[in-house]
Amino acid sequence: MTITAPERTRVRTDDRAHVFHSWSAQAQIDPMPIERAEGSYFWDDEGRRYLDFSSQLVNVNIGYQHPRLVAAITEQAAKLCTVAPGFANDARSEAARLIAEVAPGDLDKVFFTNGGAEANENALRMARVHTGRHKVLAAYRSYHGATAGAIAVTGDPRRWASEPGVSGVVRYWGPYAYRSAFHAADEHEEGARALAHLRDTLVVEGPHTVAAIILETVVGTNGVLVPPPGYLAGVRALCDEFGIVMIVDEVMSGFGRCGEWFAVDHWDVVPDLITFAKGVNSGYVPLGGVVISRAIAATFDDRPYPGGLTYSGHPLACASAVASIGVFRDEGILEHARALGRDVIGPELRALARRHPSVGEVRGLGVMWALELVRDRKTREPLVPFNATGAAAAPMAEFAAACKQGGLWPFTHFNRTHVVPPCTTTPEEVREGVAVLDAALDVVDRYYTGE
Amino acid sequence: MTITAPERTRVRTDDRAHVFHSWSAQAQIDPMPIERAEGSYFWDDEGRRYLDFSSQLVNVNIGYQHPRLVAAITEQAAKLCTVAPGFANDARSEAARLIAEVAPGDLDKVFFTNGGAEANENALRMARVHTGRHKVLAAYRSYHGATAGAIAVTGDPRRWASEPGVSGVVRYWGPYAYRSAFHAADEHEEGARALAHLRDTLVVEGPHTVAAIILETVVGTNGVLVPPPGYLAGVRALCDEFGIVMIVDEVMSGFGRCGEWFAVDHWDVVPDLITFAKGVNSGYVPLGGVVISRAIAATFDDRPYPGGLTYSGHPLACASAVASIGVFRDEGILEHARALGRDVIGPELRALARRHPSVGEVRGLGVMWALELVRDRKTREPLVPFNATGAAAAPMAEFAAACKQGGLWPFTHFNRTHVVPPCTTTPEEVREGVAVLDAALDVVDRYYTGE
Ligand SMILES: Cc1ncc(COP(=O)(O)O)c(C=O)c1O
Ligand SMILES: Cc1ncc(COP(=O)(O)O)c(C=O)c1O
Repeated sequence: MTITAPERTRVRTDDRAHVFHSWSAQAQIDPMPIERAEGSYFWDDEGRRYLDFSSQLVNVNIGYQHPRLVAAITEQAAKLCTVAPGFANDARSEAARLIAEVAPGDLDKVFFTNGGAEANENALRMARVHTGRHKVLAAYRSYHGATAGAIAVTGDPRRWASEPGVSGVVRYWGPYAYRSAFHAADEHEEGARALAHLRDTLVVEGPHTVAAIILETVVGTNGVLVPPPGYLAGVRALCDEFGIVMIVDEVMSGFGRCGEWFAVDHWDVVPDLITFAKGVNSGYVPLGGVVISRAIAATFDDRPYPGGLTYSGHPLACASAVASIGVFRDEGILEHARALGRDVIGPELRALARRHPSVGEVRGLGVMWALELVRDRKTREPLVPFNATGAAAAPMAEFAAACKQGGLWPFTHFNRTHVVPPCTTTPEEVREGVAVLDAALDVVDRYYTGE
Repeated sequence: MTITAPERTRVRTDDRAHVFHSWSAQAQIDPMPIERAEGSYFWDDEGRRYLDFSSQLVNVNIGYQHPRLVAAITEQAAKLCTVAPGFANDARSEAARLIAEVAPGDLDKVFFTNGGAEANENALRMARVHTGRHKVLAAYRSYHGATAGAIAVTGDPRRWASEPGVSGVVRYWGPYAYRSAFHAADEHEEGARALAHLRDTLVVEGPHTVAAIILETVVGTNGVLVPPPGYLAGVRALCDEFGIVMIVDEVMSGFGRCGEWFAVDHWDVVPDLITFAKGVNSGYVPLGGVVISRAIAATFDDRPYPGGLTYSGHPLACASAVASIGVFRDEGILEHARALGRDVIGPELRALARRHPSVGEVRGLGVMWALELVRDRKTREPLVPFNATGAAAAPMAEFAAACKQGGLWPFTHFNRTHVVPPCTTTPEEVREGVAVLDAALDVVDRYYTGE
């Protein structure tokens, strides 16, 4: 399957003429063609190789083109590509059983969707019908997807253009010790004050009017914000106290990203609903879903669940999830991810921070890390302002360009670069990537104005 | 790949234990396993064969397990399974080019989604940003999907449990001559009065506050309502007059279902946005999208489009769409669908109507037909009431059971049975299915109370 030069040109011209890209000004982008990929690397149409520190959109958890997934897709395609949601099917049944098996507590039914936004849409619907209440508490620093319900609970600027949206969303501030909304002195105080703020907000909203609290277990795109010890347990306790459904969005943090099946496992907290997508099958086929507690599932035993989609439980997607969970188990991916974070990524990034004044904070766990870039460690002034674009965002653009120049594909957002390679990345590959970051951070250091 | 008896049992028990099904009371269903499928047929786990008059959820337009699609999926899986929306990719570029090629007028950019609901969500977003207006006119007899934005513009009872939802949706009555909301005497009058009603509604809403009118070109699940001649052109004219975006939802009616690439082609009307899913690749891989006019695409040339999803333009999905469009062309599927409706399905169903008093109306085109079942042809009292469940819906349940008993899988909704087999179904297969309908209608005739 060699591609000819005219075919290469055509990929680009057809893209520019006919593909409408997400979150972009169409005339201002020049999308780079990806021609092939393997393991932790992908190649553009000029044969240039990139080490992927982004896992595409933090979804390729088991790396590119894993042979077992390719085989599972091929086998299922030959057998049966599509079955409506109303039927039973072996791939669907097995995927649901395996996901229930790895989910915590009594979460043992799975509603399948095509992606993360639809997963959150349905979790919100389940919570509302289950409680008979309407309001939902959602965090400012969050992303939950771009359909009307998911964007309404999203806290970041991507929701602005979709407002006014669904009614009944109340926003709160989650913990973020480095930039505390609560003037907390340390992580411990941050957790306690964030919980107090959440309780206060509930009280003034009327807890009996609140159907759900939704949060990313570890906030993803909005900063790799790892909750302080006790925070998630505190949210769980608030939900229990007031009969509120606890929804954790593990679309990004689940399936190995944080070194566990689900990031909540790290804190031994059992939510009522978990939403997932991305890592469940590394995005080889579109798939997402909601894992549902017994109590919430029981609400719909004799009362029809009022939601659905044509491709719920798609056999091709389910077959790839089955294969992926097998890969996780047989290849010890959770253990690898945990060790990689603890022994390699964490130490390497902290070493970078020692060399580069512009690294304000290093945080993360498993294979989900962030470097927060600042102009001054004391004032913590971010390298670029909140939601900066164009000239204001230039330092980050220069940083990203330097990474790409060095053969590393970074994941940047605001004043941060995240380190989110496939969970299967080797220590040597991490070090290779960190060396590129090291050079790229020299560029950033030039903007440093602190002492 | 033979399946053993214990494995068969496991499919059912795992389904009951772990799969949460859409639109259902979980304890009251017993989903039938589908084990294999080919062409116009599928088989359950007892080897029982069903001729499919439903195309699953009206999505398997080119039939089951078409070898060219299976090959395309296999080939793409081996090459590259996943690429983020920000990149270019050969499968994505080609799918977009081909869809633009078959779309009418100057609709030549494609925003890809995973399914129909997300397609409508994004069409609505484009219309709102493009016009700077908020309100949307949507029909009572419609289904547009189950995410918050799509369910808000849905007119049928599936939206009830999701209310109150997104603000700014205004509902109108579309044309439906058999049960006219306008006391029209015939199709022609129905079309004219429906347009007058739409204009009146616009005037009192303030046309300058309306971003879009959304409609299914041929209303699908809510009745196979074929628009009277002139209706769509009239909607187009209203949109032009007031600067309103015309969104046609062709998720069900597109890609051969109505004997055209898009059903609008039948009436030579060019909308501003077309949403699609299902038939684009027969659901072999989850895929949907929006085809966008030049003017609307240009709005986002220098202004970022505020929407997206992780799997926009998924390579596996796009590769299957490319193959499917090739199949449509090489196998003359549009021509076949047109002829099948005109020469076989239509005449056969009208013959059924002559034999069975309970058939109140036969309507449709291409491979999209409905029999409307009544207790009395004169009063047109429906066989079962609007949105009936349980005992009230028993006559329809008996009808469906009789079909299945006869080896035919029907698509029933309210007091109707739709005839929506794959577009590749042969005349002989249609006649085989019609013979089963014939027998099943004897059951329905027993409820007939007219003369
Ligand atoms: C935490 C989180 N939730 C939800 C989503 C939305 O998922 P999707 O893009 O598949 O709709 C994302 C996507 O990045 C995410 O990171
Ligand atoms: C006309 C129409 N629009 C939209 C949808 C929603 O599509 P999906 O189920 O893929 O979200 C459907 C599904 O049946 C449909 O028939």
